[in-house]
Amino acid sequence: MSSESLDLNEAASLGSGGSFWTTKAVRDIPAIYVTDGPHGLRKQTGSADHLGIGASVAATCFPPLAGLGQSWDPELVHRVGEALGEECQAEEVHVLLGPGINIKRSPLGGRNFEYLSEDPHLSGILGTAWVRGVQSRGVGASLKHYALNNQEHDRMRVSSDIDPRPLREVYLRGFRRVVEDAAPWTVMCSYNRVNGVQVSEDPFLLTRVLRDEWGYDGVVVSDWGAVRDRVASVAAGLDLQMPFDGGVSDTAVVEAVEAGVLDRTVVDRAARRVEALARRGASAHRAGATYDPDEHHALAREAAIRSIVLLKNEASLLPLAASGSIAVIGDFAQSPRYQGGGSSHVNPTRVDVPLEEIRAAAPGVDVTFAQGFTVDGAGAQPELVAAAVEAAAAADVAVLFLGLDARQESEGFDRDHIDLPAEQVDVLRAVAEVQSRVIVVLSHGGVLDLREVTAHAPAILDGNLLGQAGGGAIADVLFGKASPSGKLTETVPLRIHDTPAYLDFPGEHRHVRYSEGLHVGYRWYDARDLEVAYPFGHGLSYTTFEYGTASARAHGDGVIVTVQVTNTGERSGREVVQAYVSVPESDQVRVPCALAGFASVELRPGESRAVDIVVDRRDLEYWDIRLDQFVLERGRYVFSLGSSSRDMRASVEVSLEGDPVVFPLTLESTMGEVMSNPVAASLIAQAMPMPDLPEGDAMGTDMARMMASIPIERTLSFGGGAASREQLEQLLSAANAQG
Amino acid sequence: MSSESLDLNEAASLGSGGSFWTTKAVRDIPAIYVTDGPHGLRKQTGSADHLGIGASVAATCFPPLAGLGQSWDPELVHRVGEALGEECQAEEVHVLLGPGINIKRSPLGGRNFEYLSEDPHLSGILGTAWVRGVQSRGVGASLKHYALNNQEHDRMRVSSDIDPRPLREVYLRGFRRVVEDAAPWTVMCSYNRVNGVQVSEDPFLLTRVLRDEWGYDGVVVSDWGAVRDRVASVAAGLDLQMPFDGGVSDTAVVEAVEAGVLDRTVVDRAARRVEALARRGASAHRAGATYDPDEHHALAREAAIRSIVLLKNEASLLPLAASGSIAVIGDFAQSPRYQGGGSSHVNPTRVDVPLEEIRAAAPGVDVTFAQGFTVDGAGAQPELVAAAVEAAAAADVAVLFLGLDARQESEGFDRDHIDLPAEQVDVLRAVAEVQSRVIVVLSHGGVLDLREVTAHAPAILDGNLLGQAGGGAIADVLFGKASPSGKLTETVPLRIHDTPAYLDFPGEHRHVRYSEGLHVGYRWYDARDLEVAYPFGHGLSYTTFEYGTASARAHGDGVIVTVQVTNTGERSGREVVQAYVSVPESDQVRVPCALAGFASVELRPGESRAVDIVVDRRDLEYWDIRLDQFVLERGRYVFSLGSSSRDMRASVEVSLEGDPVVFPLTLESTMGEVMSNPVAASLIAQAMPMPDLPEGDAMGTDMARMMASIPIERTLSFGGGAASREQLEQLLSAANAQG
Repeated sequence: MSSESLDLNEAASLGSGGSFWTTKAVRDIPAIYVTDGPHGLRKQTGSADHLGIGASVAATCFPPLAGLGQSWDPELVHRVGEALGEECQAEEVHVLLGPGINIKRSPLGGRNFEYLSEDPHLSGILGTAWVRGVQSRGVGASLKHYALNNQEHDRMRVSSDIDPRPLREVYLRGFRRVVEDAAPWTVMCSYNRVNGVQVSEDPFLLTRVLRDEWGYDGVVVSDWGAVRDRVASVAAGLDLQMPFDGGVSDTAVVEAVEAGVLDRTVVDRAARRVEALARRGASAHRAGATYDPDEHHALAREAAIRSIVLLKNEASLLPLAASGSIAVIGDFAQSPRYQGGGSSHVNPTRVDVPLEEIRAAAPGVDVTFAQGFTVDGAGAQPELVAAAVEAAAAADVAVLFLGLDARQESEGFDRDHIDLPAEQVDVLRAVAEVQSRVIVVLSHGGVLDLREVTAHAPAILDGNLLGQAGGGAIADVLFGKASPSGKLTETVPLRIHDTPAYLDFPGEHRHVRYSEGLHVGYRWYDARDLEVAYPFGHGLSYTTFEYGTASARAHGDGVIVTVQVTNTGERSGREVVQAYVSVPESDQVRVPCALAGFASVELRPGESRAVDIVVDRRDLEYWDIRLDQFVLERGRYVFSLGSSSRDMRASVEVSLEGDPVVFPLTLESTMGEVMSNPVAASLIAQAMPMPDLPEGDAMGTDMARMMASIPIERTLSFGGGAASREQLEQLLSAANAQG
Repeated sequence: MSSESLDLNEAASLGSGGSFWTTKAVRDIPAIYVTDGPHGLRKQTGSADHLGIGASVAATCFPPLAGLGQSWDPELVHRVGEALGEECQAEEVHVLLGPGINIKRSPLGGRNFEYLSEDPHLSGILGTAWVRGVQSRGVGASLKHYALNNQEHDRMRVSSDIDPRPLREVYLRGFRRVVEDAAPWTVMCSYNRVNGVQVSEDPFLLTRVLRDEWGYDGVVVSDWGAVRDRVASVAAGLDLQMPFDGGVSDTAVVEAVEAGVLDRTVVDRAARRVEALARRGASAHRAGATYDPDEHHALAREAAIRSIVLLKNEASLLPLAASGSIAVIGDFAQSPRYQGGGSSHVNPTRVDVPLEEIRAAAPGVDVTFAQGFTVDGAGAQPELVAAAVEAAAAADVAVLFLGLDARQESEGFDRDHIDLPAEQVDVLRAVAEVQSRVIVVLSHGGVLDLREVTAHAPAILDGNLLGQAGGGAIADVLFGKASPSGKLTETVPLRIHDTPAYLDFPGEHRHVRYSEGLHVGYRWYDARDLEVAYPFGHGLSYTTFEYGTASARAHGDGVIVTVQVTNTGERSGREVVQAYVSVPESDQVRVPCALAGFASVELRPGESRAVDIVVDRRDLEYWDIRLDQFVLERGRYVFSLGSSSRDMRASVEVSLEGDPVVFPLTLESTMGEVMSNPVAASLIAQAMPMPDLPEGDAMGTDMARMMASIPIERTLSFGGGAASREQLEQLLSAANAQG
């Protein structure tokens, strides 16, 4: 049965939730169940309260996307997606609300731990893998939060004010890729406004861009409570308002259609999409499905290992020997921080405790523990510091677990600063005074100011958020059972003052200006030539890699870049090879370099392989505001191959034909533009002889250069009367025809 | 006779130029003559060519505004204005086209040498003095370029895209002050667009802001060639299109009125304003007036002395003794650079040559000269360097004249970089190797990267552009006949990369985003905590000043800040005392500190005086985008008294009552906002009992904090059904009434 036979009340009714977590069953159209994600299920038990904040069933807590993204590994992300899909099947969930791929615009963004990167290419590739993985198991994804929801402060009212190029080339780019390449069952519209328009009511974002340009045919669902005016939302392209609102908005839709202010066909179309989603979800559901929590825990551990970034490793302090003594210091070693707060919060099936895992991994090692500090905001506690110092002094090496408490990073509010708590820094300083072999393991969702840590610790493992199996993963990496291969997905700046959005975050009075424009993340630090603590894409290994000469060839609309990589160290390891593109002679504003592709390779000691990186034309285009479309510019493209965005090892150039783009001469064209067109210059010279420029140097400048920026039509207001507007128009038409 | 009796053709005709430099005579309304400024007259001789670029009569070339601004001296600027007015009377000029008070947004701005400062308070105060000075002599000024014309690149088409607060608080602020305080006879509308609208057609800028808000009743004249569509311009508030256009636009205006698309009363009003201007100009004209070029040259010298900034003076290398030997090096010592190119270019009555003035000032000194380099772009010339090194080595001290050639800085195009020519830096380095007593004298209109100069020269005099008497002024300061007292009107950054607009200047595709927002000039470096080469307001003296304790008292709508200043050195000198305001507990985004007032004091050795600085409420307000008006915020204002923006010597606080501002609660108010209103909180709690939050830590966060940002109306879409929209509205109304 198709919804064409639904009456208006039924059609309207399909467009809003039936409960906090379900759609409505209408006639034979089933209700389906959706639940929060994205790094695990938050399925509420019992009767869901109307705010959706009750306890949830146990589920595997995989690394949150901030951690998982550091794997730079779409294959791994796909497998995590598959496992999440399996848990959804087992819990009778039809749609999992993820992935969140918003750009990390500022390190202060409260929900950054749920997002993938400051870079849209990386977010798009990994988001695509996540969606494909989940959906491969017959469960829908919900690509969120579309769009420009890059902060929590006043998130339901603030307008993200942005220019067209950063909108297209940075903030929408990842969404475009996931929609085009993975066709998520649903796309979730965000709470905020964009350029003054509520996203849930914005036909530009919900229809023109998403459907007309990207060809999306799934369901647009609101973020929970994102709809202000359901009628306006439906008209703009929203299909499903969540959650249940008591039927108020269904009535409003019916009344609007009856009053002639909302087109019935729009309501029917939305209903058909919801119907298709519900039927698809129900038919793909496998009743009685189960999953193996142990297997999923093992996958969570594998994912956590991949997510760890070795920031620093002076004198190869890591990996640790499985002998001697280790002082483990810091509350996080016994009470690990592995996820963030809010709607993504998972009730884990179990939690690996780092201290226990370290003891289990190295039974021959004398492991002592000192708490060092507490995370309750109690501040400096001299007795804890003294015990930590004592333990550190007595051991061969000290491993400090530092980081941020979950309550400092949550959905719903942003951070105020990027500092580690002072009491933790105090412990670090005190320990470093008695122990030179200090390893810091960091747990945190958002970027930290690491100047103190870098100054005092010869080795740093960035655990970010690793999910429930992070404890075991850390032990594996500390003792070299696995070599770290994660890479930063965000720049670690020296100071918050240096960050791109520092002066415009989180805005005020319901507006936030995206003032850094295209220069988000590493693009900013590179363009302003700023020193950083650790660059985007950075991550060391226990082995070393050498890059050979790069080559490149055209491949469809894009390019394949190839480079030989050799493991020149003594351990097996994995390298993530990153390709950054520059367009040095571009006629447009360009960032110094932008990630255009990446690939990873696993190599045994001495092994060498050619790594192919496929670069899509979507990663080479710019958005032309004159044409209102993406353009592949003609010219020379330089690909730099790097182990990080600031550690380039090889480069290769390609010349691309690009899209044919012609801007005809008009009356608004400048003298400079007209005169640089030989045909036009000749016609103009005949029709409008220029006066002889005065002798000597009457105005102390280069008159031709000074006059080059005058639009040709303005010469009409300098009353020489040499030509009329009509004559000029004819000349330009003739030039355009001949040119 | 009033223009009310003019017919439509006559009225339209009054609204466009009669020639390149004149208005039209209509009936008994005289034509008046206008000419370029602003640091001297550029009155063309003979029959003006139709592009206005021919040779001009000799006139005193005072320091261009970039130099003159460094005096921070409204009294001096007023006297220069008087002299300019006298020259206008003598040359039969009725309106002088200046001052240019646009903000120096980027050091690359090609016309920065014509403008006063990166700070709108300073620009407004000095611009007011200039206009009052000129107009005191019966000659009109033309305040320009109104508005947002902060670059030359594509200046006739580019749209300056800007948010309301920087528009009001930075870019319009100086214009507002000059209009309100000095009533310029004319205001010149600029070439560019603002937020997409051509300024010459913008009713917001030309009528709402300028006339309705600021009360302007003079003539709005177009920049030459700024009108694209005269009918649209007249409708928007333009009175006078310049220059002569052959009558084309007069006809267009007549036809538009006859076709009913343009209101006749608008045309008549514009004509009446032009008529009033013409009658005022003609009646104030003093036939046969003359001026004394020697007196004006002496004033130009006085102004030039005041304009010189002593950037650095290690070990009191300056002033020089009138004995021993000096090597004068650098082409600018014999061919001084003292103004810029373009419409402001003056044909000077005479030019002081620094080398000659130095010889004249110190007859007992053995002065040698080496050219060092040429300014023709020839690059390094080893023989010139060798001669310079030889001269420097043989002398007691080397004075190097470095800077930019006039052709590198002009109206019509922007600069590409802020570097001194490499060949000049080479000479400096080579000289510094053989001579430790190096003094650099700089000539340039725009800011330079001074890292090399600072590294190699123990003393630096920033001459900026000093006009025709600069050579004598430099000699006076070098030998201590005058103690320098100028202060920088622009920050000298370490690198172009550090400048606020670095990534958004000059824009592309006819748009430039003013992305630094409020953080223009020193506001940016302070907010981002960036090191600079020389801060805004910096300038040393040959003596020293001590600041006492500051006090403050309310004064009308503003504040008077007082501080005792004592000359603690051994020479007479003048100190410019600067008052910067901070609002530490502001509810708005605020810059760290902003110039709110300044005053200068001349003190003999040991002398002490109380300096009063009057601070206007206009310099304390912020623009509230919710109310669309300026607001004086209630709260604590801290005034820091400094010798520069980074050399604060005293501070004092004032609490201001501020404007009464109330934002009633609405359905868009957040839960946090509603609950912080005790009356509303109580009413809401009774009507909408909140559900018990779940036990324990189901979402790992502070639920109350997470929910604080939800607009109260959105709770309706969480289907608890606790209240209807109407009930909520009633509750909020009740709370607003009681609150």
